[in-house]
Amino acid sequence: MTHALMDDHVFYSWSAQAEIDPMVITGAHGSRIRDDAGNEYLDFSSQLVFTNLGHGHPRVVRAIQEQAELLCTLAPQHATGVRSEAARLIAGLAPDGLEKVFFTNGGADANEHAIRMARLHTGRPKVLSAYRSYHGGTQTAVNVTGDPRRWPSDTGTAGVVRFFGPFRYRSEFHAETEEQECARALAHLRRTIEAEGPATIAAIILETIPGTAGIMPPPPGYLPGVRELCDRFGIVLILDEVMAGFGRAGAWFALDRYDVRPDLITFAKGVNSGYVPLGGVVISDAIADTFAHTPYPGGLTYSGHPLATAAAVAAINAMTDEGTVANADRLGRDLLGPGLRELAEKHPVIGDVRGVGVFWAVELVADRDTREPLPVADTLAVVAACRRAGLLPFTTANRLHLVPPCNVPDADVTTALGMLDGALSSGS
Amino acid sequence: MTHALMDDHVFYSWSAQAEIDPMVITGAHGSRIRDDAGNEYLDFSSQLVFTNLGHGHPRVVRAIQEQAELLCTLAPQHATGVRSEAARLIAGLAPDGLEKVFFTNGGADANEHAIRMARLHTGRPKVLSAYRSYHGGTQTAVNVTGDPRRWPSDTGTAGVVRFFGPFRYRSEFHAETEEQECARALAHLRRTIEAEGPATIAAIILETIPGTAGIMPPPPGYLPGVRELCDRFGIVLILDEVMAGFGRAGAWFALDRYDVRPDLITFAKGVNSGYVPLGGVVISDAIADTFAHTPYPGGLTYSGHPLATAAAVAAINAMTDEGTVANADRLGRDLLGPGLRELAEKHPVIGDVRGVGVFWAVELVADRDTREPLPVADTLAVVAACRRAGLLPFTTANRLHLVPPCNVPDADVTTALGMLDGALSSGS
Ligand SMILES: Cc1ncc(COP(=O)(O)O)c(C=O)c1O
Ligand SMILES: Cc1ncc(COP(=O)(O)O)c(C=O)c1O
Repeated sequence: MTHALMDDHVFYSWSAQAEIDPMVITGAHGSRIRDDAGNEYLDFSSQLVFTNLGHGHPRVVRAIQEQAELLCTLAPQHATGVRSEAARLIAGLAPDGLEKVFFTNGGADANEHAIRMARLHTGRPKVLSAYRSYHGGTQTAVNVTGDPRRWPSDTGTAGVVRFFGPFRYRSEFHAETEEQECARALAHLRRTIEAEGPATIAAIILETIPGTAGIMPPPPGYLPGVRELCDRFGIVLILDEVMAGFGRAGAWFALDRYDVRPDLITFAKGVNSGYVPLGGVVISDAIADTFAHTPYPGGLTYSGHPLATAAAVAAINAMTDEGTVANADRLGRDLLGPGLRELAEKHPVIGDVRGVGVFWAVELVADRDTREPLPVADTLAVVAACRRAGLLPFTTANRLHLVPPCNVPDADVTTALGMLDGALSSGS
Repeated sequence: MTHALMDDHVFYSWSAQAEIDPMVITGAHGSRIRDDAGNEYLDFSSQLVFTNLGHGHPRVVRAIQEQAELLCTLAPQHATGVRSEAARLIAGLAPDGLEKVFFTNGGADANEHAIRMARLHTGRPKVLSAYRSYHGGTQTAVNVTGDPRRWPSDTGTAGVVRFFGPFRYRSEFHAETEEQECARALAHLRRTIEAEGPATIAAIILETIPGTAGIMPPPPGYLPGVRELCDRFGIVLILDEVMAGFGRAGAWFALDRYDVRPDLITFAKGVNSGYVPLGGVVISDAIADTFAHTPYPGGLTYSGHPLATAAAVAAINAMTDEGTVANADRLGRDLLGPGLRELAEKHPVIGDVRGVGVFWAVELVADRDTREPLPVADTLAVVAACRRAGLLPFTTANRLHLVPPCNVPDADVTTALGMLDGALSSGS
């Protein structure tokens, strides 16, 4: 722990408190952040994959400052222009037939409320989710999460069943082609539904593109196949776009890349680049109708917070005017994707490169043939070498996630690829 | 629904969506808010009982604006000055031995995380909570909530057991004195613990002063008695100060009014008057130690959000410099409390007046002797009369809660009491 933090009273997320050694950040601008030793880093983590417009976007900053002057806060039972405008803009980005927006403070509570809506809409208790997933830190959200971070919280939640999604690089289904992986993953899901009892299942919740679990764009037929199963069995489809949405995947919603219409979409992060805490649920007409004359039994003090929704309105308008989403798509196709694949050709430690838009995973392996993950210590050595070079990737397990802002300058991408190249040469 | 909202895409908390008719708010200042028809109201709801510094406090607004310029957002694994300063200030307000602060976005997730900490610290599954309580809208938070808003969500959570707390006006224990109520409530809690199995119980969660359930300051011996039971049986005591804390009860924490030291304190609302979504948990050294070398398995993207913590630092410093907490205490003792009791003498529809600081409930009854609650329609008529007079109370069941900002001018309290007097004369 650095001296500045010796008397720190902050209790840190997901951490052993005596073992933390955080970077002390003193400033940030665009795709760069600065620490208290004056070092500057290319922020290719987008923090926790949420500063889709980078740091300090002037239009969003100004909107926050002006709203702060006008009206910082308002109870959810009242109405005010900026809250309604944010809902209108977000509903406008979702597929037709999803017209209402319930605002929360972040991604976890968005998923909590989406699951409640699904349970009450169907009158069924169970929720199916993927082992390779992250849906948030509150009790139900962490429980639908598949990732081992859930284990310590398996007490206290009922009605969650997990299954495996498609993932060619580490197939659970012994598939040899993408089509086979897709068909077998759908068959596995169908068997799980049948074995659990279709009439007991309220919802299937999936990240459109699983993020923290490894940025695994599904095969094109998978989500339409899941939709079909949901239709057949009367199950609500919740797509979690908390990380993948708002430009990250080179589309407003990642689901725009697939032929699928969910019943509920959860969002957070990129909706306002995290400048003010905000999340929410976009709701299909059928589910909204369930609560037309029966009160929705849920809420929160800061639902539709004026400062947070003002930041969302400004962020969405800025992204529209600046072509930010198309830019993210282009970066993925023309620069970041090709650049990472080139590094894979050069560095045998790279086992796989996956992604789209500004949403890329580089999977590090000890052996390309067996695909054995690179040990954590070696992965951390690569990360340390990146940092020394001035590059901050998002790191988890044996992976680096290269997830810069959607508006990162091309030159910064080229620089970052060079830094990564050097780190892979020295650090592994 | 007013014309301005005909095409509203907002899905409202706790509401039947087709039946809402919200006020459209266009501005607010201090203890006053303004609607789109130009009407001004004395905001004696503090929205959802959280604008403890009123609307638009210049020092907090300026802190938000300056922080927005400097650094809007930062991932929780990094450190930055304002986050650490907020933690230091909040820990400084809590009893000695509670030194770490885990930041969340609001009250519900604060309680979710506090319950997880208690379960992991004790290795036990169950949580005991009061029927007369509200702890938030996410699955576990609403499930420890006793209030009927929990009922639709009773599926999906395990390990919560509810009991009755002390409440003289509607005693569950057939008590005739405050001392008897206290002793009997403690005996009931002890019996519940013994019948559930002490070694299965991780935590007891209580609002220090139950808020939404009716603002019921406990008898002086109750919380010390609960502490004793917790010590005897190795149970964690969580005090929920989300509504009661940060000046509301005429003390920094309501628990300062009682001789009790909890193991975990949850907070939100008044910590920064809700100007930016923020909540958290203050953690005892013993519980923090549990996660010294074992990672705490929980977190959230916006933990310790710079904009939210900047607002907290400014709000706490403003409250300190302006003597806001002492002012709230004085208002309760000298003006708001006596004024409401005077109204009770005049209006037989008032069955009970309870509270402290700027945290007062007026319970309306159809009959003073039987204490039968005033029917909802009649209560709503009183509320409508208040609104016509220009007064906005917080309303629930058969109660008006008079919960103005802690820094409401004395003259506004006098005016509000007059408006309420008129409304009670005309509306009931
Ligand atoms: C896909 C997904 N869903 C939900 C969440 C939870 O969001 P929050 O941390 O805002 O609660 C995350 C956070 O990383 C996420 O990536
Ligand atoms: C005592 C108490 N705890 C928790 C909460 C939940 O807080 P939030 O609405 O910020 O989730 C509330 C909200 O009114 C509350 O009054």
